[in-house]
Amino acid sequence: MPELRQNRATKEWVIIATERAKRPEDFKSTKEKKEIPEYSPNCPFCPGNEDKTPPTLFSIGNGKNWEVRVTLNKYAALSLDVEPYEKTDEFFRSRGGYGHHEVVIETPKHNLTTALLPESSISNIIKTYKERYLAILKDKRIHNIIIFKNHGETAGTSLEHPHSQIVGTPVVPHQIRNRLQEAMRHYDDHNECIFCRTIKEELKTKERIIIETEFFVSFVPYAALTPFHLWIFPKRHNSTFGEIREDEISDLAKILRITLRKLYFGLNNPDYNYVIRSAPTDGRGLAYFHWYISIIPRLTKSAGFELGSGMFINVSLPEENAKFLREVKYT
Amino acid sequence: MPELRQNRATKEWVIIATERAKRPEDFKSTKEKKEIPEYSPNCPFCPGNEDKTPPTLFSIGNGKNWEVRVTLNKYAALSLDVEPYEKTDEFFRSRGGYGHHEVVIETPKHNLTTALLPESSISNIIKTYKERYLAILKDKRIHNIIIFKNHGETAGTSLEHPHSQIVGTPVVPHQIRNRLQEAMRHYDDHNECIFCRTIKEELKTKERIIIETEFFVSFVPYAALTPFHLWIFPKRHNSTFGEIREDEISDLAKILRITLRKLYFGLNNPDYNYVIRSAPTDGRGLAYFHWYISIIPRLTKSAGFELGSGMFINVSLPEENAKFLREVKYT
Repeated sequence: MPELRQNRATKEWVIIATERAKRPEDFKSTKEKKEIPEYSPNCPFCPGNEDKTPPTLFSIGNGKNWEVRVTLNKYAALSLDVEPYEKTDEFFRSRGGYGHHEVVIETPKHNLTTALLPESSISNIIKTYKERYLAILKDKRIHNIIIFKNHGETAGTSLEHPHSQIVGTPVVPHQIRNRLQEAMRHYDDHNECIFCRTIKEELKTKERIIIETEFFVSFVPYAALTPFHLWIFPKRHNSTFGEIREDEISDLAKILRITLRKLYFGLNNPDYNYVIRSAPTDGRGLAYFHWYISIIPRLTKSAGFELGSGMFINVSLPEENAKFLREVKYT
Repeated sequence: MPELRQNRATKEWVIIATERAKRPEDFKSTKEKKEIPEYSPNCPFCPGNEDKTPPTLFSIGNGKNWEVRVTLNKYAALSLDVEPYEKTDEFFRSRGGYGHHEVVIETPKHNLTTALLPESSISNIIKTYKERYLAILKDKRIHNIIIFKNHGETAGTSLEHPHSQIVGTPVVPHQIRNRLQEAMRHYDDHNECIFCRTIKEELKTKERIIIETEFFVSFVPYAALTPFHLWIFPKRHNSTFGEIREDEISDLAKILRITLRKLYFGLNNPDYNYVIRSAPTDGRGLAYFHWYISIIPRLTKSAGFELGSGMFINVSLPEENAKFLREVKYT
C-alpha cells in the first residue's frame, strides 16, 4: 500500500508508491559499456591539453604531473568579470551575473570514474574541494558555495573525463533559505540539530544504513526522493563543509569511495549527481544546520507532478534499496 | 554577460547564462519523427479497450463514442483504498498513501497530440479537468489537487496516447506552502496580488508576451527556469482553478492550443510538461494567490547545481524565446 513519508529536516513529503514499485535489481543501468581510452587527444581535461582550459588555479602534484587540477569553467554560468550590480528598484529584479564557476579535474586518466579511483585520489579531490571552498569564501561578494558532480549524460554532462564543479553565487538560493528556516524552527522547538538527531535515529534502527565509518555514515534517507537516493553525513556537528578536518577528509574519501563503488557494481555504473550541501558562507558555526553529501542516481525521470508540486513519487522502498546496497560486493 | 533574475512571486533566483547561450533555433528537437497509427490495438486508452483500464469515472460523449474519458490510474501513486492513518508521534513521520490519481484520456485518436487537436476538443479536456477538480474537491481528506500532463519520454511518459493526470494528495506539498507564504508577504507589503501585478507589468513591456486573448495571456517568465518555459495566466484574479467560467474555458482552449502549436511547429514537437498551479483545496477566494498554467519544454537537463541549490541555469534569453515564438506560424 502506498505511503507518504516526511523529511523531518525540510518538511517535504514524498510518496512511496509501492503499487508501481520495482525490485532493486530492476534499476540496473542497461546502457551499453563503452570502451573509453585512458587518454583522449581532444579532451581539454587530459594532460598535455592544459592550454585548452583557462589557467590552473590550484593543483595537487607538480607541473605537468598533476593529480588533481582546478581551472575556471570555460563555459562559466557566472563570471568574475561582471560588475555585481543590483537592480532591485524596478519591478523586474536582476543582478549582474558575478560569481565563481570552477572545474575540478579529478584525475589525469580520461577513463577513470570516481568509483574506480584509489582512496588516496579521492582524498586529494576532497582536499581540493576544501582548498577551493576556503579560497572562494574569502570573496565577500559570494554568499553561497555549491560543490557538485554530474556523472553521465542523464545527469547533465557530456564530458567523459572525470570532473566536478564548484559554483559561488552572489545570492543565497531560496531553497537553501527555506531549509535553514525549517532547521532553525526544529532547533528552537526541540533544542537539537535535526540532522544530528536523524543520524542518531538512523544508527538506532540500522535498516537504511549502507556503511558506517569512524567519522561518517552513509544511508538511504527515510523519505528518499528517488530510488537509491543516498546521504553521507559527518557524525561531528558542523554547519559548513569548510570546517572538515584532515582526518575526516581521509575517512570521507573511504566512505564516499565505498558508496560510489556499491552503486557502480550494484547498479551497473548508473548516471548520478552528488552535491555537498553546506550552510551559506555566513553560516559557519550554526547550531541548527549540518553539512552533508547527497547522492542522486538518475534512475527515473521527474515529470509534471514533481515539477508542479515539488513532491516526488519514489517507486522503490528505501529499506530495500539499503539492504541491496549493503550486500553489494565492492572490492 | 551573465545575469541573475528573480521570480518576484517565489523569490527564486535564476542564472541567465549568456556565455553558454544558444539561439532559439538550436533548441529544436532532433528526435526522429515516428509514424504513429491512429488506433493501436494494445493501447489501454484506445476505444474498444475500455476494459483494460479501471472503470470510467467521467466522460464527454456517449458510451463507446466518448471524446474524453477519465479513469483511475491503473498504476496509481496514491490509492482510495488506503486508510489515511497518521504516524506523527514517532521520529520518522508517515501517513497512509490515501489519495486520488486519475487519468484523463484526451482523445480517442492514438496519434493526436494536444497541439494538433481542434479547439473544441481542448475545450472538452479543460471542462473535464474542472469537472474532476470539483469532484475531488468534495473529498475533505484531500488538501491539494495537481493537474498535469507529461508529453514524451524525457517528460516522463512512455504512453503515446494523449493523456493527462490529476492527483489529489492528503497533504499540501511544502513547495506550495512556501509559494503561498511568499505571495502573502507580497500582498501584505504592497496590497496587491503579485501575479496580477506581474501580468500588468508583462503586458506593459510586451517583450516576453507570446499571445494575448480576451481572458488570458501567455508569456515567457522574466526569470524563466529553462529555455522556453512558459506561463499562461488568467487576467481575472482567482486563486483556484475550479472557479474558471464557461467563457474562460473556451478562451483558455484557444490560447493553450495556439501556445502548444507554436512549440510544436517552432521546436519540432518537443517533449514537455504542463501543470495547473492552483491554491490548495482550502484556498478558494484568496486575495494573494492566482492560479495559472506553467509549461516546461524538456530541452535541457537539470544537473547537480540545480538539485543542490534549487536554482536553475537557463542557457537562453527569455526575450529571444518570446520573439521566436511570436513569429512561429501555427496554422
